[in-house]
Amino acid sequence: MLRCDMDDAAPLPAAAGLTPLQDSCTVTRVGARAHRLGRLVAAGLPVPAGLVLPFDTVAEIAEGGPVPDLGDRLGPFLAVRGSAGEKAWGGPQSVLNIGLSDETLPLLASRIGERGALEAYLRAIRSYGVRVAGLDPEEFENLYYDQMKLAHKLETSDLVEIVAASKALFEDQIEHPFPQSREAQLEGILRALASEWNAASARILREARGAPPDAGLALIVQDMVFGLGDRHSGAGSFQAVDSATGVASATGRFLPDAQGADAGRGVRTPHMITEVERLAVGQTRPSLEALEPEAYRKLTAASAKLTAALGDAFEVHFTVEAGELYVLDAEPVRRSTRASVQVAVDLAKAGVISRERAVLRIDPKALIETLHPQVDPNARRDIFGTGLPASPGAATGTICFSPEVAMTLHAQGESAILVRVETSPEDIRGMHSAAAVLTVRGGMTSHAAVIARGLGLPCVVGASDLSLNLKKGELRAKDGRVFRQGDQVTIDGTSGEAMTGAPAMLPAVPTDAFDTLMDWADEIRTLGVRANADTPADAAVARRFKVDGIGLCRTEHMFFEGDRINVMREMILAEDTAGRISALERLLPMQRADFSDLFRTMQGLPVTIRLLDPPLHEFLPHSSSEIADLAEAMDLPVSTIIARADDLREFNPMLGKRGVRLGITMPEIYDMQARAIFEAAHDAAAAAKAPVVPEIMIPLVSANREVELVKARVDKVAASVAAERGEVIEYRIGVMVETPRGALRAGDLAKHSGFLSFGTNDLTQMTYGLSRDDAGRFMRDYVNLGVFPEDPFHTLDIEGVGELLLIAARRARAENPNLTLGLCGEHGGDPSSIRFCKVAGFDYVSCSSFRVPIARLAAAQATILSREDGGE
Amino acid sequence: MLRCDMDDAAPLPAAAGLTPLQDSCTVTRVGARAHRLGRLVAAGLPVPAGLVLPFDTVAEIAEGGPVPDLGDRLGPFLAVRGSAGEKAWGGPQSVLNIGLSDETLPLLASRIGERGALEAYLRAIRSYGVRVAGLDPEEFENLYYDQMKLAHKLETSDLVEIVAASKALFEDQIEHPFPQSREAQLEGILRALASEWNAASARILREARGAPPDAGLALIVQDMVFGLGDRHSGAGSFQAVDSATGVASATGRFLPDAQGADAGRGVRTPHMITEVERLAVGQTRPSLEALEPEAYRKLTAASAKLTAALGDAFEVHFTVEAGELYVLDAEPVRRSTRASVQVAVDLAKAGVISRERAVLRIDPKALIETLHPQVDPNARRDIFGTGLPASPGAATGTICFSPEVAMTLHAQGESAILVRVETSPEDIRGMHSAAAVLTVRGGMTSHAAVIARGLGLPCVVGASDLSLNLKKGELRAKDGRVFRQGDQVTIDGTSGEAMTGAPAMLPAVPTDAFDTLMDWADEIRTLGVRANADTPADAAVARRFKVDGIGLCRTEHMFFEGDRINVMREMILAEDTAGRISALERLLPMQRADFSDLFRTMQGLPVTIRLLDPPLHEFLPHSSSEIADLAEAMDLPVSTIIARADDLREFNPMLGKRGVRLGITMPEIYDMQARAIFEAAHDAAAAAKAPVVPEIMIPLVSANREVELVKARVDKVAASVAAERGEVIEYRIGVMVETPRGALRAGDLAKHSGFLSFGTNDLTQMTYGLSRDDAGRFMRDYVNLGVFPEDPFHTLDIEGVGELLLIAARRARAENPNLTLGLCGEHGGDPSSIRFCKVAGFDYVSCSSFRVPIARLAAAQATILSREDGGE
Repeated sequence: MLRCDMDDAAPLPAAAGLTPLQDSCTVTRVGARAHRLGRLVAAGLPVPAGLVLPFDTVAEIAEGGPVPDLGDRLGPFLAVRGSAGEKAWGGPQSVLNIGLSDETLPLLASRIGERGALEAYLRAIRSYGVRVAGLDPEEFENLYYDQMKLAHKLETSDLVEIVAASKALFEDQIEHPFPQSREAQLEGILRALASEWNAASARILREARGAPPDAGLALIVQDMVFGLGDRHSGAGSFQAVDSATGVASATGRFLPDAQGADAGRGVRTPHMITEVERLAVGQTRPSLEALEPEAYRKLTAASAKLTAALGDAFEVHFTVEAGELYVLDAEPVRRSTRASVQVAVDLAKAGVISRERAVLRIDPKALIETLHPQVDPNARRDIFGTGLPASPGAATGTICFSPEVAMTLHAQGESAILVRVETSPEDIRGMHSAAAVLTVRGGMTSHAAVIARGLGLPCVVGASDLSLNLKKGELRAKDGRVFRQGDQVTIDGTSGEAMTGAPAMLPAVPTDAFDTLMDWADEIRTLGVRANADTPADAAVARRFKVDGIGLCRTEHMFFEGDRINVMREMILAEDTAGRISALERLLPMQRADFSDLFRTMQGLPVTIRLLDPPLHEFLPHSSSEIADLAEAMDLPVSTIIARADDLREFNPMLGKRGVRLGITMPEIYDMQARAIFEAAHDAAAAAKAPVVPEIMIPLVSANREVELVKARVDKVAASVAAERGEVIEYRIGVMVETPRGALRAGDLAKHSGFLSFGTNDLTQMTYGLSRDDAGRFMRDYVNLGVFPEDPFHTLDIEGVGELLLIAARRARAENPNLTLGLCGEHGGDPSSIRFCKVAGFDYVSCSSFRVPIARLAAAQATILSREDGGE
Repeated sequence: MLRCDMDDAAPLPAAAGLTPLQDSCTVTRVGARAHRLGRLVAAGLPVPAGLVLPFDTVAEIAEGGPVPDLGDRLGPFLAVRGSAGEKAWGGPQSVLNIGLSDETLPLLASRIGERGALEAYLRAIRSYGVRVAGLDPEEFENLYYDQMKLAHKLETSDLVEIVAASKALFEDQIEHPFPQSREAQLEGILRALASEWNAASARILREARGAPPDAGLALIVQDMVFGLGDRHSGAGSFQAVDSATGVASATGRFLPDAQGADAGRGVRTPHMITEVERLAVGQTRPSLEALEPEAYRKLTAASAKLTAALGDAFEVHFTVEAGELYVLDAEPVRRSTRASVQVAVDLAKAGVISRERAVLRIDPKALIETLHPQVDPNARRDIFGTGLPASPGAATGTICFSPEVAMTLHAQGESAILVRVETSPEDIRGMHSAAAVLTVRGGMTSHAAVIARGLGLPCVVGASDLSLNLKKGELRAKDGRVFRQGDQVTIDGTSGEAMTGAPAMLPAVPTDAFDTLMDWADEIRTLGVRANADTPADAAVARRFKVDGIGLCRTEHMFFEGDRINVMREMILAEDTAGRISALERLLPMQRADFSDLFRTMQGLPVTIRLLDPPLHEFLPHSSSEIADLAEAMDLPVSTIIARADDLREFNPMLGKRGVRLGITMPEIYDMQARAIFEAAHDAAAAAKAPVVPEIMIPLVSANREVELVKARVDKVAASVAAERGEVIEYRIGVMVETPRGALRAGDLAKHSGFLSFGTNDLTQMTYGLSRDDAGRFMRDYVNLGVFPEDPFHTLDIEGVGELLLIAARRARAENPNLTLGLCGEHGGDPSSIRFCKVAGFDYVSCSSFRVPIARLAAAQATILSREDGGE
């Protein structure tokens, strides 16, 4: 059941037909606006009195049911506002000034002056004519502008004439006069709004917006307060914090002699609210603070009261009638992620909300925009194109011209820069996979710009000095330089520039509020967050993001650096075990040095090192010059190199001879890696005078005997290194669970393992029978058709892969209660997947370094939610 | 616990130390021979009295424990025979003639004559000397042959001298005289045999034979009966059925004046047992039937009694002493599979055993040797090599020179002919995958010949007119013709010939007994057996094997025939949907014709048709001439063809855009197939005037929405064909469950499905993360190292894949109790996997046609065993 507010007020019962605003508690009966107004009333804000027709009442009216009798409740003048379940589902425009008639006109005139009252009467006839009787709004506008042409400023008498003309127009078209009773007007309006809601076109629209077609609408009937009138009246909005930064900063607009949406219509320039702001922008019009000090005082008090009562910063929509303040609505201030963090931290520090609440307030995924690095201002920029700085941050990567290629590159662990003329919804999935986006056309609100900001993705749009020829696969700069798929470029979404190569980057600098929030998250969370880091450089980045350790070091990435790849190739193409061992002996010191650096960087935090995983052919040379080099290095004919490389080719490399299968069939490789790990651990422990406990992870296990065989050899290497060094060190051997069989047999695997870490990338591939590299061909169709609700490589598939994780965790823990359980697929950086890991009882998740803050926050949220669900 | 015999005698208790033979019931305590002898005693056969020292007693003796006291049980002359748990684990040679001494010699002489007694004494001294005292057997032989040189035929006095010389030799070497008491001799022999069993070398030998190193040995002490002696005595063996055919045919050998293994030693030519056999072989020596009619009568009676009591045909080992018959042992007749079937059916027809028992007697896998086709005698044979006909049957396939290639070809569904110089144990896995084997060297008992017969695989060995150059990859015939990997040849293991190409074949002709057994199996089994058949020709073969239907028709195989492949390629490479649809329209009549034939052939039996499954690039041309042809046919440049083909290439085709993913993203393909199926079903039903109910199977499903989308379109096609034909036909839509996720979500999938069929080939690949095409690289190592107990692609992995099947079956049945569940991977032809399917509650298995009899028999056995386990 939905709660009455975000914090902890208890729900109130609501009567049928008409519910007083202050009792309108259940969003699912009365919609969001009525619910919100109820909370404002409860907080003691000066909200005009009102009654709510809940969803079911409106639905009955739409089907011809009776309109509830207002009786003598509320005053003579009314407004009707819609209240739908969710703002995004739409709702009718408000209808104001109900109850105006020839008879009540003098009453209103005595209250707000004759001009104001006439203006209100005009608006009443027009809106009833258009909304209820279906008249053309233009005909009413014409009456108005006909008079405007005659007189630059309308006199009261002009208004009287327009009122008469409007009534005549109405009677002429409808064949009965404009209704003169409050009740008749109200009934007409309520019926019209109910029917409008129930119309086929509205239903289709709701469906198009993702709402149920029969999503409900409530209607709020409220006493009118009038911002119209010559003096001391008007309408405006106000908020106490800055939308961009979230720091305290009173800001707003006020339009005298205006009501409802007038202030936003831009016919007249609004006044500032505060003197400070007026002076800051150099406006001569007086601020509300100067115009109406009392109303201003009440406004700031109302804002503060609201924040204290509801625990958030609100944008207050208000009307001033004859110097008196009325609050018409208040919505949480729209804000950037940075501002969200600032507001939440400030509120928690002020004791308005708890730290847990502050932590829950922030969408972890939104943090990504605060985490992007920027190009170092001192770096040389070789700019080949400029456009609009559509989404901040900078990224370096490989050019690609289609979303499919972006997805493939991403799947292969490469950073893709998606270059398009413009983007369209079909590109969204590719944008998800890209590191940055560059478009030749489009503005700040183009599709690419909007989506990129949503994704926190660096983006430059409208780089019109570039021309893109997709047929030729060429991006041509003004100076004639041509870029093709595979070229490395850097996009600076903060400056709007596209550069060649990879200029130096500076990491994102977090705000103090961000650091505070993350500290709170760390205090709260009971789920560890580690980073996937393959090299000492990666590890340094990970430390900056305050990880609890390294959850996945993919040792193969170390082999691609510098001239190591040639030694690696010699190892792979060796004719026999002796040749392989000789190459491995040369690789040993390189691996050992890497591991030493890694252990030193991580200063005693856990480091999980995965033994060699990819199929060996991934390391082989492709170009003929590389092959020739290798042939010379190995003193073998080129044809032999090619033949041996051909021998290694596989039909389905993902399902081939890789992972532990290499370790079993060529045990000398893992022997070398184990030796490098143990020697490095000895070295690092000696240097730091503190123990280093390496965690060695065996990949692609599908049978327990694989673990037994590898473990026996690793233990033997450990023993011999210990004998050589004269000291025994502690270490843990664990299993990377990434085959469905590994998950099902987790009970067996747990017997001899110190930890199990779920590699959900591969596990997802195998559970679905779906290669991530090839899924790009149809994943878009699949998600569009709803075959998969989400791309299972982005968000963990709870029903399939998730069940395997739960089975595995249960069996593993039953066998070995002290076992550490982790997850090290890309899902480790996805908040909903992290929530699942918490529920499943995992000890940690491991994700890429730049996603660590997201994971830390999501882990804290998962801990709070689990506790609230009674899960902890 | 092991039962006392194959049928149903209850186990008897056995006392410690010494157990009377007739009580020696528990194989696990007294070994196989003692157990067998106990049953012979129980059946009333004339077995010499005896006592058994069980495993634990012998083990204690080996450790220096006491030898049980025989007291006055048994007679003065004894034999000791070993009794191990399994014959294959080995055991000591028997020690006979115990109790002979200077004192007892006259007693034996009075019983069997002086010459026989002296010969027995000689043997006693020699065997005690060699077995207990460790003397060199040659020295005893020399004594014997020294005398032989002097006299062509040894006189009694010569024997007396040799006895004296032997005793002197013994005393000379051992420094004490040959022991003269029965007890001393027996204790020495029992201790020697126990120690021998316990020796390190024996333990290693047992381990090498696959036995536990401490597998037990029991020792049987029995009264001696003497086949030695001039007249009316001897030793022999007899059986009442023919080993090759199993038909009743009394046969055997008898050697007068002989004991133990003398008859098999070949020193003298043995006599036949029956007059019929003597006449048949034209022997002049009288048969036992003529020599000792009374002993012969008792022998045939004993054989018949044994068969009646134990329900099998036995080879009886006997001794005749002074005209009296003694049975020393009886083992089930060694026999061919054909003979096994004949014997079992005859026994059941005679009421000796039940039909269930007859069905259980036959190893389903062994049936394969009776099922192999032969080259049609009328076909033209282009023979390029001849060798020995090592294993019967003939097969056509593709030449390959390594076991790895054989496994790969097999995995790709191709028939491989493995050609080797000789085979060795490393080739066994490749032989499993081959359709036939050809070796250049080796004889009828070479490795290749023995293994091939065991596998029922056509095999020619020692084809020395061929020469194999592995480096060049060439097989060269005497006439200069050269064959390379990929060439098609036929091996006739019945004639010993290797032929080019594919001469016409005749199917194996089953015996009446075979047909009877299969009829019984069909009456018993409750598990359906269908065939995997892709073409009308396949379906015709399947019908001959009496299938219950077709469980898997892989429609893609139809596209490779004739000129269809070009239309298929045009469809695949079409630029747009319109082009694809135009090609599909031309494919429609071809598919329809195939399906019509299929339905006609199957005459109303269920036919499950799988919609297109493989990735489209599998259909593309590879050679440049094929590409050029296609370019011309499509009126496109070759470069375009190559570019589009490249576009379709995948990293991991197994996990790519295939199966239902094709159906979702290019729905027009499945539309065409559905139309072809429905139109064919209408045609076939009209022709047969009987309903045809096609079953349409959706491959590679991982999410229920895939089923919904395809089902909706198939239903629509069905409706429109029904409208066109003016008649509605019944059909079923089901899912091929072959991804782990499909198995986990089987409950969902069952909602809209008429059946689920488990494709365990792919399911095994995905559960293990192991491609069958690539596993050949290390599967041998993996099975040798015990990482996998069996190749999971041959025998269903119960622990992993099996658990997924059980989960899926349970969830599917819970959701939809009327659902049909089947299995259509290669495991459908594997007996232990079939047993699992029965336990899991499946309705049918589907396997290749030639394995259908195996599956029918295995299904019947599974039904019987489930019933006995209370499972049914």
